[in-house]
Amino acid sequence: MVGYGTIGRRIAEAIAVQPDMELIGVVKRTPDYKALIAASRNIDLYALDEASYELFQERGVPCRGVLDDLLENIDMVIDSSPAGMGAKNKAKYENYGLKMVFQGGEDSSVAEISFVSECSYEKAYGKNAIRVVSCNTTGLSRLINCLDDAFKVKQVFAVLVRRSADPEETGKGPIDAIIPAIKIPSHHAHDVNTVLDVPIVTMAVKVPVTHMHVHALEVKLGSKATREDVIDVLEEASRIILIDLEDGLSSTGRLFDYARLKGRPMGNIYELMVWRDSIKIDGNKLYLFQAVHQEAIVIPDNIDAVRSAMKLGSKAESIRITNATLGITGRAF
Amino acid sequence: MVGYGTIGRRIAEAIAVQPDMELIGVVKRTPDYKALIAASRNIDLYALDEASYELFQERGVPCRGVLDDLLENIDMVIDSSPAGMGAKNKAKYENYGLKMVFQGGEDSSVAEISFVSECSYEKAYGKNAIRVVSCNTTGLSRLINCLDDAFKVKQVFAVLVRRSADPEETGKGPIDAIIPAIKIPSHHAHDVNTVLDVPIVTMAVKVPVTHMHVHALEVKLGSKATREDVIDVLEEASRIILIDLEDGLSSTGRLFDYARLKGRPMGNIYELMVWRDSIKIDGNKLYLFQAVHQEAIVIPDNIDAVRSAMKLGSKAESIRITNATLGITGRAF
Amino acid sequence: MVGYGTIGRRIAEAIAVQPDMELIGVVKRTPDYKALIAASRNIDLYALDEASYELFQERGVPCRGVLDDLLENIDMVIDSSPAGMGAKNKAKYENYGLKMVFQGGEDSSVAEISFVSECSYEKAYGKNAIRVVSCNTTGLSRLINCLDDAFKVKQVFAVLVRRSADPEETGKGPIDAIIPAIKIPSHHAHDVNTVLDVPIVTMAVKVPVTHMHVHALEVKLGSKATREDVIDVLEEASRIILIDLEDGLSSTGRLFDYARLKGRPMGNIYELMVWRDSIKIDGNKLYLFQAVHQEAIVIPDNIDAVRSAMKLGSKAESIRITNATLGITGRAF
Amino acid sequence: MVGYGTIGRRIAEAIAVQPDMELIGVVKRTPDYKALIAASRNIDLYALDEASYELFQERGVPCRGVLDDLLENIDMVIDSSPAGMGAKNKAKYENYGLKMVFQGGEDSSVAEISFVSECSYEKAYGKNAIRVVSCNTTGLSRLINCLDDAFKVKQVFAVLVRRSADPEETGKGPIDAIIPAIKIPSHHAHDVNTVLDVPIVTMAVKVPVTHMHVHALEVKLGSKATREDVIDVLEEASRIILIDLEDGLSSTGRLFDYARLKGRPMGNIYELMVWRDSIKIDGNKLYLFQAVHQEAIVIPDNIDAVRSAMKLGSKAESIRITNATLGITGRAF
Repeated sequence: MVGYGTIGRRIAEAIAVQPDMELIGVVKRTPDYKALIAASRNIDLYALDEASYELFQERGVPCRGVLDDLLENIDMVIDSSPAGMGAKNKAKYENYGLKMVFQGGEDSSVAEISFVSECSYEKAYGKNAIRVVSCNTTGLSRLINCLDDAFKVKQVFAVLVRRSADPEETGKGPIDAIIPAIKIPSHHAHDVNTVLDVPIVTMAVKVPVTHMHVHALEVKLGSKATREDVIDVLEEASRIILIDLEDGLSSTGRLFDYARLKGRPMGNIYELMVWRDSIKIDGNKLYLFQAVHQEAIVIPDNIDAVRSAMKLGSKAESIRITNATLGITGRAF
Repeated sequence: MVGYGTIGRRIAEAIAVQPDMELIGVVKRTPDYKALIAASRNIDLYALDEASYELFQERGVPCRGVLDDLLENIDMVIDSSPAGMGAKNKAKYENYGLKMVFQGGEDSSVAEISFVSECSYEKAYGKNAIRVVSCNTTGLSRLINCLDDAFKVKQVFAVLVRRSADPEETGKGPIDAIIPAIKIPSHHAHDVNTVLDVPIVTMAVKVPVTHMHVHALEVKLGSKATREDVIDVLEEASRIILIDLEDGLSSTGRLFDYARLKGRPMGNIYELMVWRDSIKIDGNKLYLFQAVHQEAIVIPDNIDAVRSAMKLGSKAESIRITNATLGITGRAF
Repeated sequence: MVGYGTIGRRIAEAIAVQPDMELIGVVKRTPDYKALIAASRNIDLYALDEASYELFQERGVPCRGVLDDLLENIDMVIDSSPAGMGAKNKAKYENYGLKMVFQGGEDSSVAEISFVSECSYEKAYGKNAIRVVSCNTTGLSRLINCLDDAFKVKQVFAVLVRRSADPEETGKGPIDAIIPAIKIPSHHAHDVNTVLDVPIVTMAVKVPVTHMHVHALEVKLGSKATREDVIDVLEEASRIILIDLEDGLSSTGRLFDYARLKGRPMGNIYELMVWRDSIKIDGNKLYLFQAVHQEAIVIPDNIDAVRSAMKLGSKAESIRITNATLGITGRAF
Repeated sequence: MVGYGTIGRRIAEAIAVQPDMELIGVVKRTPDYKALIAASRNIDLYALDEASYELFQERGVPCRGVLDDLLENIDMVIDSSPAGMGAKNKAKYENYGLKMVFQGGEDSSVAEISFVSECSYEKAYGKNAIRVVSCNTTGLSRLINCLDDAFKVKQVFAVLVRRSADPEETGKGPIDAIIPAIKIPSHHAHDVNTVLDVPIVTMAVKVPVTHMHVHALEVKLGSKATREDVIDVLEEASRIILIDLEDGLSSTGRLFDYARLKGRPMGNIYELMVWRDSIKIDGNKLYLFQAVHQEAIVIPDNIDAVRSAMKLGSKAESIRITNATLGITGRAF
């Protein structure tokens, strides 16, 4: 693991519960509370470089060496460093002949393939460099992929209402404003197309919340479908959960509460959450609302990406193990 | 005037600068800071009823009588009381043989016609009861109407990202959540259809901001149009302003600042604000972002509705006078 | 357990890991997502009353009966129903001859004694009705109590900057405002005095956040103390944690992240968090900032209150077991 | 004027209504919406430097030259550029032999004296360089000064609950967190002491709001005073307003609404707002809540600072004119 931020730490936890993977170490730049907690959990820490190593020494945080020391001893690296850093680290990883998984903050050119488990597992099999796409792209792709399988998707228009910062990013705003991503389509459309070949337009706005994105979707279907047909398909999908207003799940705040109460580590919601009551068919168009937990939705895909690159089994097998170990059942309760 | 809340006070200010209207009095239930400011501006206040009159007496806020005392002395009443109260007051207004303007919080059945100046002025001419539609509906209708005139609109899909409370509504949330209006279409689609006969689907979410709504729009045009054609049409419209990212107008927070700096009373933005840089044509589809100031966009329409009901001149004449008195030029600077 | 809201669910989880307690059932009014999760964890649910029971039946949520059915089979009830409901339920509990623990939302007259573990355990021993005070009062009492033991506290002045809603309370505001509790002292001062006999003045404001309160404190000490003395005393206290800016723990957002990363269930912070860098001695006055997790700080005190009422061991013994089972070590890492 | 941000634009507006001052020009770095609005109001704009001048040319915003061109033609400069820039500009101003007013974002060493009208006018008379202190310091100084005159202030403890960003600063957070200024005292105590010689300790937190700071105060008085005595003194003060809960003024959101409704340009509140209902005397201690509009409270002091530096009349005379021109009456209604 390189990076122990919002995504990195969650991948580390997920690896720890996989029967066929081992977490050798985590690379961090700063000896902050995240490093201290990792240390207290007996995770082996490595400093990013010599300067970073000094900081660990000064602060008295246990540290087994620097990035290179770790790279020598592993088969595969998952890079979850800040956006753009992955591309810079890549040459180093290649020097050690490692398999690599990058995150969606990197440009798609960093890897041989952009990855969402359901869409890309087979194509990525045995590849050296895989890029797991961003949270919003993962959410869109999961939905579109299963609709496409069932009904053929002709066109997608999605408006993404995005959280502006994670809970710990306390310097980021806005406090009381909506910020549209003025360029249309937003970059998400292009990013979906690195995974799925479907006509899509996306528009995005940022709003002052810290938990979850919400997507408003209009999907043109290629074959006739009733509301019930769509519900059946989404209920089948293992990483999509249909939620009901009747249960009180009326907002992202409530979904966050649901995840914590359910006992998910860090309140993680690995699944795409679709409001059942919002599903509406009008002619060949489908409308719905879905919510994406920006901190967690890509975690199962990272785990599957490792298996795909390392050729650790079939797609169905990998998804089954990942789901079982992370408590993903496809149902809300 | 009945009501002196977010909308009522702004209509009162707007009437005060019309050459052909006179504000006889304002009806309020509570002798709060709004009443005290109205009094200090020499607006004649009337209590809603006897109980309310007592409160005014106790608090020592000048008050010339109750609702009925005012209704006796006027030709026309603009009702901007809380949603649903207008319908209850209607019988009383009718008893006095008054012309009536209601707000969009009321059901459309409260009036003979739902009103947006550009779309409804002639149809409403001389009518006894007119309902000015809500802020979001007004914003959508203004845009659709002028696009329809120029290019014929075949279909509209709009996602409304709504402010959840006005600045003074300090009890309302959410604080850190997105709340989708789960039923699709949201009520706005139907409401637009009380004004314009166009196929429209709307979806809405509430977010924790107090200044302005933002709409993400996909509009299917009936005739060929380039981006420049659309810009030309919107520049022509007197109550639509095209704004540029280059000028720093990148968010609702900035628009609010713009309006205050411009010297608009209470920071009012009467115009629909469309981000020029967002305008995108893809085949026969038009995409764009627009912002709606929930406190102010319906004010010019209320003034025009009065002229229409009272037969005070043609649509063009009324819009010209309203625009001139409120400083509406159709341009940002 | 009566109530499964913010506090109730956490007490239920805490009881489940106590070696000397058993959770017989939980009473809920509504069969919502909280009930469904409780059911999926094999917690026996009881409806509040017949009307409530109907709702459970309709929704198909397993339910073993109503409140009375549960009360028949238990020795002790912990009431965490909404503020004011506890007092109404009390007569019923007494009919069944139960020991009772209430929460700080109730008036202090509901119980024989108001309770914070360190201050009240012995006095509460064997009592029939104990009231665990609110989160803010618990935080203040823990600090004052250990300072008083070491240095004698002469006077306290505290300003409470309060979160306005829990994450799931998505209807509550404000969105962009500060709301002072205008009456001085705020009710917290009186509430501390139900636990500790110390001169105290409190002022409180509500702000638009959902995670944690922050207290700014000025404490007049009765005996000479250096900054180091104070640090030593706070490091000794088992339910107070000193946190360091150097570790990146600079805001409530970061503390919330710390708790989640640490693996605490639901991100619970049972401890009072004091910023070490803020501790300042000026003559006989001590100043510091502390943070209180409104959802979790009272949980260990509820557990101890049960032991105290049921005479299950000494104060030291109870605190030791509670701390061990909940992972409370008195240290950040 | 150098700078046309939050403070600069408001000073420019205030100068425009002074009978004894003339606004010669405004210096801006960027030709953004603020520049465009200034231009549309016939304010002469000057670019900060040659690079900045290029930008104005490119964007087609009228611009009469650069900073030096303006400095040649004026007697006095008011610098309201971003914090720290004023000190850098100072040498240039001195080259032209100008009198100077700086803002509170600069270190106090930038000027001969730190300034709040009531406290510093005479001492600043004829000085070359005056620094008007920050909004929080101005609010504290106004209150303490008039209490000190009446009752002698022995000691002040203040907790400042600060807005984190102005409405247009849409990049700044936090979104959902409280951020304490960990070092105690916060810099405000020292800053008050550049104006008033009184023992003071301040603590500060930042919260996610954009309108106004709130201060919680504990003031030790040197002579006996009743609540009524304090109210009398504050009612006398021309730039302090007592506000009443009974009028609905219960939060900063409501105060912001009050100012807009009152017709204040940009919603400016030049006065310190003190909640009458919060005023509490306990022995020799006074407690109260006050609110400070960060955008506007220093404006009258800037105007007075100009008169003081330019020797344009006595303190009483200057305050009288400033108040009359800005609509400051010392009363809420």
